[in-house]
Amino acid sequence: MPRPLDLHPDRLLPADPATRTIARELYASVADLPIISPHGHTDPSWFALNEPFGNATELLLVPDHYLFRMLYSQGIALEQLGIGGHKANPREAWRILAENYHLFRGTPSRMWLDWVFAEAFGIDVQLDGETADLYFDTISDKLQRDDFHPRALFDRYGIEVIATTESPLDTLDHHRTIQACDWNGRVITAYRPDPVVDPEFEGFTDNLARFSEISGEDCFTWPGYLAAHRQQREVFKQVGATSTDHGHPTAATANLSPVEAEALFDRVKGGAASPEDAELFRAQMLTEMAGMCLEDGLVMQIHPGSLRNHNQRLFETFGRDKGADIPTRTDYVHALKPLLDKYGNAADLSIILFTLDESSYARELAPLAGHYPCLKLGPAWWFHDSPEGMRRFRLMTTETAGFYNTVGFNDDTRAFLSIPARHDVARRIDCGFLAQLVAEHRIEDWEAAELAQDLAYNLAKKAYRL
Amino acid sequence: MPRPLDLHPDRLLPADPATRTIARELYASVADLPIISPHGHTDPSWFALNEPFGNATELLLVPDHYLFRMLYSQGIALEQLGIGGHKANPREAWRILAENYHLFRGTPSRMWLDWVFAEAFGIDVQLDGETADLYFDTISDKLQRDDFHPRALFDRYGIEVIATTESPLDTLDHHRTIQACDWNGRVITAYRPDPVVDPEFEGFTDNLARFSEISGEDCFTWPGYLAAHRQQREVFKQVGATSTDHGHPTAATANLSPVEAEALFDRVKGGAASPEDAELFRAQMLTEMAGMCLEDGLVMQIHPGSLRNHNQRLFETFGRDKGADIPTRTDYVHALKPLLDKYGNAADLSIILFTLDESSYARELAPLAGHYPCLKLGPAWWFHDSPEGMRRFRLMTTETAGFYNTVGFNDDTRAFLSIPARHDVARRIDCGFLAQLVAEHRIEDWEAAELAQDLAYNLAKKAYRL
Amino acid sequence: MPRPLDLHPDRLLPADPATRTIARELYASVADLPIISPHGHTDPSWFALNEPFGNATELLLVPDHYLFRMLYSQGIALEQLGIGGHKANPREAWRILAENYHLFRGTPSRMWLDWVFAEAFGIDVQLDGETADLYFDTISDKLQRDDFHPRALFDRYGIEVIATTESPLDTLDHHRTIQACDWNGRVITAYRPDPVVDPEFEGFTDNLARFSEISGEDCFTWPGYLAAHRQQREVFKQVGATSTDHGHPTAATANLSPVEAEALFDRVKGGAASPEDAELFRAQMLTEMAGMCLEDGLVMQIHPGSLRNHNQRLFETFGRDKGADIPTRTDYVHALKPLLDKYGNAADLSIILFTLDESSYARELAPLAGHYPCLKLGPAWWFHDSPEGMRRFRLMTTETAGFYNTVGFNDDTRAFLSIPARHDVARRIDCGFLAQLVAEHRIEDWEAAELAQDLAYNLAKKAYRL
Repeated sequence: MPRPLDLHPDRLLPADPATRTIARELYASVADLPIISPHGHTDPSWFALNEPFGNATELLLVPDHYLFRMLYSQGIALEQLGIGGHKANPREAWRILAENYHLFRGTPSRMWLDWVFAEAFGIDVQLDGETADLYFDTISDKLQRDDFHPRALFDRYGIEVIATTESPLDTLDHHRTIQACDWNGRVITAYRPDPVVDPEFEGFTDNLARFSEISGEDCFTWPGYLAAHRQQREVFKQVGATSTDHGHPTAATANLSPVEAEALFDRVKGGAASPEDAELFRAQMLTEMAGMCLEDGLVMQIHPGSLRNHNQRLFETFGRDKGADIPTRTDYVHALKPLLDKYGNAADLSIILFTLDESSYARELAPLAGHYPCLKLGPAWWFHDSPEGMRRFRLMTTETAGFYNTVGFNDDTRAFLSIPARHDVARRIDCGFLAQLVAEHRIEDWEAAELAQDLAYNLAKKAYRL
Repeated sequence: MPRPLDLHPDRLLPADPATRTIARELYASVADLPIISPHGHTDPSWFALNEPFGNATELLLVPDHYLFRMLYSQGIALEQLGIGGHKANPREAWRILAENYHLFRGTPSRMWLDWVFAEAFGIDVQLDGETADLYFDTISDKLQRDDFHPRALFDRYGIEVIATTESPLDTLDHHRTIQACDWNGRVITAYRPDPVVDPEFEGFTDNLARFSEISGEDCFTWPGYLAAHRQQREVFKQVGATSTDHGHPTAATANLSPVEAEALFDRVKGGAASPEDAELFRAQMLTEMAGMCLEDGLVMQIHPGSLRNHNQRLFETFGRDKGADIPTRTDYVHALKPLLDKYGNAADLSIILFTLDESSYARELAPLAGHYPCLKLGPAWWFHDSPEGMRRFRLMTTETAGFYNTVGFNDDTRAFLSIPARHDVARRIDCGFLAQLVAEHRIEDWEAAELAQDLAYNLAKKAYRL
Repeated sequence: MPRPLDLHPDRLLPADPATRTIARELYASVADLPIISPHGHTDPSWFALNEPFGNATELLLVPDHYLFRMLYSQGIALEQLGIGGHKANPREAWRILAENYHLFRGTPSRMWLDWVFAEAFGIDVQLDGETADLYFDTISDKLQRDDFHPRALFDRYGIEVIATTESPLDTLDHHRTIQACDWNGRVITAYRPDPVVDPEFEGFTDNLARFSEISGEDCFTWPGYLAAHRQQREVFKQVGATSTDHGHPTAATANLSPVEAEALFDRVKGGAASPEDAELFRAQMLTEMAGMCLEDGLVMQIHPGSLRNHNQRLFETFGRDKGADIPTRTDYVHALKPLLDKYGNAADLSIILFTLDESSYARELAPLAGHYPCLKLGPAWWFHDSPEGMRRFRLMTTETAGFYNTVGFNDDTRAFLSIPARHDVARRIDCGFLAQLVAEHRIEDWEAAELAQDLAYNLAKKAYRL
């Protein structure tokens, strides 16, 4: 007998009965608000082409590094799962996930997936070895139905706006298709220039060549390179972009003189930058980008602190983004000073900081965001985008930065089907946190009600200028 | 209709009913104990001259960097608030605070201010744009009444003793006045020699010249400089000092030979110290000061880890202490070793350690204080002097250092009116923590009752030798 | 009137009534499971010789650095307690502990000792100055009874297997005696080669000489040295070892070529290694040991991050392990990369990582263990082996690493009598954590029941290949 799957209406709310009652009421007031998704990695082709997704494995397992990294950690070969272009029988791969689903107990993946199974696909039994085929067939079948095509799901999910992320080398064709078509879903892009900003990115010099072609500027000269950025940022704005995003190994910034900056560019543009020059160039470019944000009004996001591709052999065999990116200790106080010395007091500038190093929340990030007009704190990110991670974020930032130097929730995902589940987790945790403040008589109930709306909807819209 | 302001009697106590009942009883037993304030920044002239405070803005907003840093972070110009000597209409400045009071939701400032409004001034409506004038007038009027003069408030607040902080360049006249007058309030000083110990302090060489004048020693020779410290420490003791305080960027200590120390002093005394020499000199001086504490019985406080004046432009325009000091990662284990190698086993020496880096609580500070006879842990400090900050302090230090290697509460404030509110928050949080230990059957109820008294009153008196 | 001592059946379970009910049921299902103790420091001679323990002070105070470090931190001289070979009257030393027992309020030592007093010795009054003699006499008398001899306690405690820790220089005679005798208790060893792996260990060169004697290899040549390890590991396996253990100051690993490694060995073997060479040699040896684990199937434990003998004078007077080891900030991401580059993808290899730096739990250790097949996370260790420490471990690792990349509980103690108390604390805290997940509807009750068994028993057996 398969075990029943049902999502408890009180899930993730505090256990204390009085606090839960408060939390439940707060949650009810925000549960059905539209979704603002200002930062994520969905594929614009889904919405441009509106073709059906494939099968359960292709949709839910293969693109989700949270899932296969856990399976891999327990000795399951990635080849068996069809990762990295390896051929695997999707039904067999799905069975491996099903038989190992207990590994995800206590993880957010479990909560996200159960929501997808129950709410998106209407499945009412738990996933395990016994129900693997039932799941595979149910999901794969439903995906072929019109009401499971990307645009239908987008509409059903109540998404008011979603941002994807593209590099300056992207032609944005899918975004143009979406703009031109008669579907009203608001899908926008975001400017993520890492491939042409990070001298250690794969193919950096080729990327500069391509950047020249796309922009019509000579991206092997410093003025041409900067002009290409300015121009492409405008192109991105035309398909809706309101933000840029920067995924650097550290939060280092620099403030070189124009002459120094040009000399540095000349040293790195050939693709043989020393590690020090590469770091300095990324650092300088964060400051350059902040300056451009002041010019064109885009909001800047900095996502530092991930040591990418830590597993050398895996990277060589399977490529990027295979679950082997590991967070590192990250300094913000010294790292951001050059940029802040130049632009920190500009109230028109908006820089949203993220971290993978929770020890910086109370020590560095909340004090910085609680002082500098240009700084805001992004939500708990990546490994910390989880119930306890979100709780720690609020517990460690609110007392110094308040709520209004934060920016609501980011789902930051390519797992499109779980987007409502992720926003739902954030809304539940935030309402639980607010309920605790009310239960301990630290804020009034009407303030909590206002804050619940702000955290679930208003702050994201405002911070991202949507 | 303005919203009512009332302070709930159970505020900050745990939400679980059984635990709250225990906490309530513990709190009731300590709520009215006298206040021991062994470390803070009130102005002795208040108590010496006993003149009325000015208006609401001058008293509550302008000196409180917790308040104006938050307003500044949201784009409000400091000029509008009258900060840094800028002229601003106090009523207008107060209105800005009132209209933005929602920014402080979830912060300790909100709780401290609400206590001041309700308990000190008897106001019974919430602060917002609508009630701004009512507040401004009520507060400014009451401040002129005799029973709101500094000494009257001191007596009303049940302050048994309060320490201010002065530099060795201070003539201590106000303290002498207080001693000589017929008012019985116990206001003592503390020896904070940063201006003559930190070669990077503004005007270091001028400070040494002034130090020579005051002490009658030649403070440009190493023996004269040390003698001047010894002498001024005695002068401070005469007006009640029982402690010294050291606000260094790091916790570095050194243990140079006398010859090396003298050579170092000769390099830095001219005011052109290299950063390395400046750091080494501060480090050496902590060890020198510890030695003097062994001689004269003063208790030593070390407050490290703040990067002062992070915002360059703000510092140039508005000066020090404008909300732009940012905590940094702080090492204690290696940093304190030279001092501890020399004096660590002296049971007569008492050094109280503070931190802005909570990651050091369980990892470094509790193990150090749980071993070395000379070390005690100061309470949660500055950005962490908040309900959650205090909880984390207890949660992360008690299991290794116990309660008896901690020293009770410091309010560390210049916001005189909120001193009872700050002690009240600490008492509530500590009682809540003790109640949790009782509810989980980890200590007995009678032990919690003893501990509540110790944390609220006895430990501070004993640790600071008051 | 002495105060009663009774251990509350609900101690350490969550205070919320609904959560406590769930926790109580989970705990009841695991409370009586046999004890798996895969890592610790009990003395094999106890079980080999089965002689009675001495008196209360000798058994419970003198070997327990948790106890005397706290007493020392409050100014009590170690000489008075009979530490480090100093003669002290055991009854007087015990009285000092009794009179200062309040220092341990809120610490795990208090809970462990109270369990020993109540459960092992049947004492029903609290320890204090008044009951000191009663305690001393009761304990010292009972220890002479047959049913308090080591093997009887081992059997009474339901220990299924216990591992001790020996250096390669140990002849393992006691282990051989245990194997040969007719008592069925399973006492195994573990291979801890620090004395011959760490060039900074006291007597390193003498240790190599002794290593040569014991192994019959020439341990002053690199091939002979490696062969001696291989051989002694086999010897250890013969008396039951399933694991190795490495207590290094950092987690640094290296991956030198054979030629470089040999040259390094030649530089350090004479005992005058530079600090850099010493660190590099330890780093290289971790990688060598991982390679040997792949050959012989032993599980590898890495215990990094303690700065040993921080108190110079105490070390000179009293020797090692006197409560003056202090944790330091520890990097894993960069430190482990060389080893992981070589062996990280070997699913047959099992490396269990420990930390004294809790800031690495969510940031580094959970992401590493949640990806690499060879890595597992050891439980909260040493200063963090406490109720709050264990809670933080689960709260900060589960969401990324899950439960199944952890390895159950280690008591890691030489305090034999408290072993059941320590496992009991871990079982209670884990059940409380699971109960919270159930109460918040994050896992099902039947999953929690399975997990409770896994955390209390199955995972340790599996991870340590017992």
